[in-house]
Amino acid sequence: MSLFQQLNSYGETDYYPYHMPGHKRRKLGEIPEQLLKADITEIDGFDNLHQPEGILRELQERANALYGAEESFYLINGSTGGILTAVSAALSRGEHLLMARDCHKSAYHAAYLRGLKVSYLYAERVKGFDFNEAVTPGQVEQALAKESDIGAVLIVSPTYEGRIADIEGIARVVHSRGIPLLVDEAHGAHLGFAEGFAPGSCTQGADIVVHSVHKTLPAMTQTALLHVNGNLIDREQIRRFLHIYQSSSPSYLLMAGICDALEIVERQGEARFARFRYRYKNMLERLEACHSFRFVPWQDVERGRQDIGKLVIDTGRSRVSGQQLYRMLLEQYHLQCEMAAGNYCLAMFTMADEDEAYDRMERALLELDGQVTGQGRGALEADEESSRGTTISELAEPVIGYSLAEAWDMPWKMTKMSDAVGCPVADFINLYPPGIPLLVPGEVLTESLYRQIIDCLAEELSLQGIEESGGEYFIKTL
Amino acid sequence: MSLFQQLNSYGETDYYPYHMPGHKRRKLGEIPEQLLKADITEIDGFDNLHQPEGILRELQERANALYGAEESFYLINGSTGGILTAVSAALSRGEHLLMARDCHKSAYHAAYLRGLKVSYLYAERVKGFDFNEAVTPGQVEQALAKESDIGAVLIVSPTYEGRIADIEGIARVVHSRGIPLLVDEAHGAHLGFAEGFAPGSCTQGADIVVHSVHKTLPAMTQTALLHVNGNLIDREQIRRFLHIYQSSSPSYLLMAGICDALEIVERQGEARFARFRYRYKNMLERLEACHSFRFVPWQDVERGRQDIGKLVIDTGRSRVSGQQLYRMLLEQYHLQCEMAAGNYCLAMFTMADEDEAYDRMERALLELDGQVTGQGRGALEADEESSRGTTISELAEPVIGYSLAEAWDMPWKMTKMSDAVGCPVADFINLYPPGIPLLVPGEVLTESLYRQIIDCLAEELSLQGIEESGGEYFIKTL
Repeated sequence: MSLFQQLNSYGETDYYPYHMPGHKRRKLGEIPEQLLKADITEIDGFDNLHQPEGILRELQERANALYGAEESFYLINGSTGGILTAVSAALSRGEHLLMARDCHKSAYHAAYLRGLKVSYLYAERVKGFDFNEAVTPGQVEQALAKESDIGAVLIVSPTYEGRIADIEGIARVVHSRGIPLLVDEAHGAHLGFAEGFAPGSCTQGADIVVHSVHKTLPAMTQTALLHVNGNLIDREQIRRFLHIYQSSSPSYLLMAGICDALEIVERQGEARFARFRYRYKNMLERLEACHSFRFVPWQDVERGRQDIGKLVIDTGRSRVSGQQLYRMLLEQYHLQCEMAAGNYCLAMFTMADEDEAYDRMERALLELDGQVTGQGRGALEADEESSRGTTISELAEPVIGYSLAEAWDMPWKMTKMSDAVGCPVADFINLYPPGIPLLVPGEVLTESLYRQIIDCLAEELSLQGIEESGGEYFIKTL
Repeated sequence: MSLFQQLNSYGETDYYPYHMPGHKRRKLGEIPEQLLKADITEIDGFDNLHQPEGILRELQERANALYGAEESFYLINGSTGGILTAVSAALSRGEHLLMARDCHKSAYHAAYLRGLKVSYLYAERVKGFDFNEAVTPGQVEQALAKESDIGAVLIVSPTYEGRIADIEGIARVVHSRGIPLLVDEAHGAHLGFAEGFAPGSCTQGADIVVHSVHKTLPAMTQTALLHVNGNLIDREQIRRFLHIYQSSSPSYLLMAGICDALEIVERQGEARFARFRYRYKNMLERLEACHSFRFVPWQDVERGRQDIGKLVIDTGRSRVSGQQLYRMLLEQYHLQCEMAAGNYCLAMFTMADEDEAYDRMERALLELDGQVTGQGRGALEADEESSRGTTISELAEPVIGYSLAEAWDMPWKMTKMSDAVGCPVADFINLYPPGIPLLVPGEVLTESLYRQIIDCLAEELSLQGIEESGGEYFIKTL
């Protein structure tokens, strides 16, 4: 019986709650009773997420069986809690982490909390597009060769835009050093579940894998899983940090959502994933008719390097920006995309989508393509490259003045950006999306980065960590 | 319009979701559609909890108005996230925290993560009962006088058993040193909302207050609030650590639950809290007929020192233990209490309770009192004190071998407990409930504590951090 069924059955009994939560399973406001009835706490018969011995233990065991992991944990503070835990558990305070530069901010936060030394992996651009590949085994090998004291490697796969790394190859390289590979697979909880899908990292040698269940599977927001394999990770440390970073009053509603999503995979997965892949491929084929918009080719999916959970819509030869396309889809067609960047916007597809999802997107893109292509095609032919919006070029290795852990705690001053060239910064400067930090606290603002940031500001891209006052830009420097 | 209404209205539109969460607002399994429809992410029009500028900002402003705070934050990782944030933001790495020994484990975790030096406040026992008072202004003053470098003070009020501190008096003492007072008011989100209720800490001078909304108000599990007042706390640090310790994909369902609970307080609070107080008092009066069971007197409520959210049922002159009473209530009457300790069990009451809550508890306790009183009263008269179960006596100041932050990361060995006397321990040893640590990593197992722990083990009380093997007890030592 699923956790939600058990919670519901319990809610129908005459047991009176003299315990938290304070709603006592009774609707007083607008939240429906059906929801409150399933929202309990660790009472008799419902186990304890922080020391599971009953139903939650069984559910976690079902999860590890499904993913081919040795041990799995339900998470209720999102993948954020999982990444904080993975990094904190894999390394002792002050040790050296090699991580992909495009890691989620929680990876940087873990490095800060644990006073880690950090080196970065830089991925290449996807050919013909303005976003990055996942990192490669060769890049990891090179980075490891440069440093002798790295204690763990953390990468992201799939990336936000759906690029999938060669986990098996990377794991081989990382394990040859006797250190663990941590994979932020937040965007890939659905991998490995059907023919034609790239395999999940748990089966490819990753030591820790973190999944957002809510991102690509049908579970509620803020739900995630952490899986552990092998003997390079101390399981007690995993438990310690899960206790630290997650509420001691975990939501049974969120846990029931995880259980429900995994049951849907078990029962409906085969049919739904096959249909998902078929419809996605079909959509891509029809979108080949676009003159301006461009898409990641199906071959990349076939090669296991692109996830079908993401449709990257590059504005290509049109004059519209990613943001403009995003607004057109939203305002003219009521299609709400996941995000927009300078030259593309991103739509997510999952096993929960039916034909409507594909039909509406196809129709909208074909129509919009006609509009933007018709508008000024001639001019564009000549001027194609210059019509593309500004993006940050591949990032160079940073000049590090102070470590993140030191720098983020140091006294800082607000400095006019033009005067800050050559200074270490005191806070993160992020281009959002995709949210990769251009500068991490302690890194030096170089002349080249300064110029790129000025271009981004001129294009009104969203930059975090920069303040405007009287037409001047200011940043925090040390 | 409430957040839940707005989420619902949005769910009724024809906007198609090409974004997270992966369920796409569609029921595939057992989780009801009504719930999934309200579970969105930070899409256009729904603001961003980590940078609120729209509806979430308005909701947080309503929360600070309600509590008389200067600034309030919605929390979705429970009070755990709030306490981690409060301690991390109030002190720089390595600074000195003075905290009540009965703080939640998240306070210890924050001290560990931030490498803090920690001193403790020890409360006295409540006269005639086996649980502790809240700490007093005098105790705080004494502790501050002993140390010159304390940077912040953290206390708990109300305690788990409902004891309420003199926050105004403590704030005066703490502020005379120019340092902030942090109050873990997780169990007191309802304080100050009706006549006869003790005031909430926000209006009594506390600099940071953390509320569990789900504990005593009608909100879902894992919801909380953090309030900030005055200028002793750097608000930017609060924001930094809230970003660090909370999911970057916060649940709108949980946030809608916070909004709903506070609306219930605004609209129904006056009547419901008055009735709550009246019915609780009434119940206490009827329970005066008990011969064996004892209760905290109503005068303590009148004096503002005991919260009516908790009913402590002391097994008093009976031969039953707290655990036995808990099981009798559960099995014979289907009354699920919050917790059981050696000599008492604890029932929670909130504004959501109707007459049923009071009627069933009254009847059960009066009947059970008759049963246990009848059984062997004569014998008990002579032997009253010895009949009471084992409890840990007031804790002495620990002998500290290493700081928590050092010790919890040091290599350890499993040591037979009888051989461990005189050694610093490597892990927490907690008596649960109430969960106050008997030993914190780095503290020395003294002869006296050893004997008390042996007594607890003999009574089969639940002790975390002790392992049994072959009839022997083992602990981790440095």
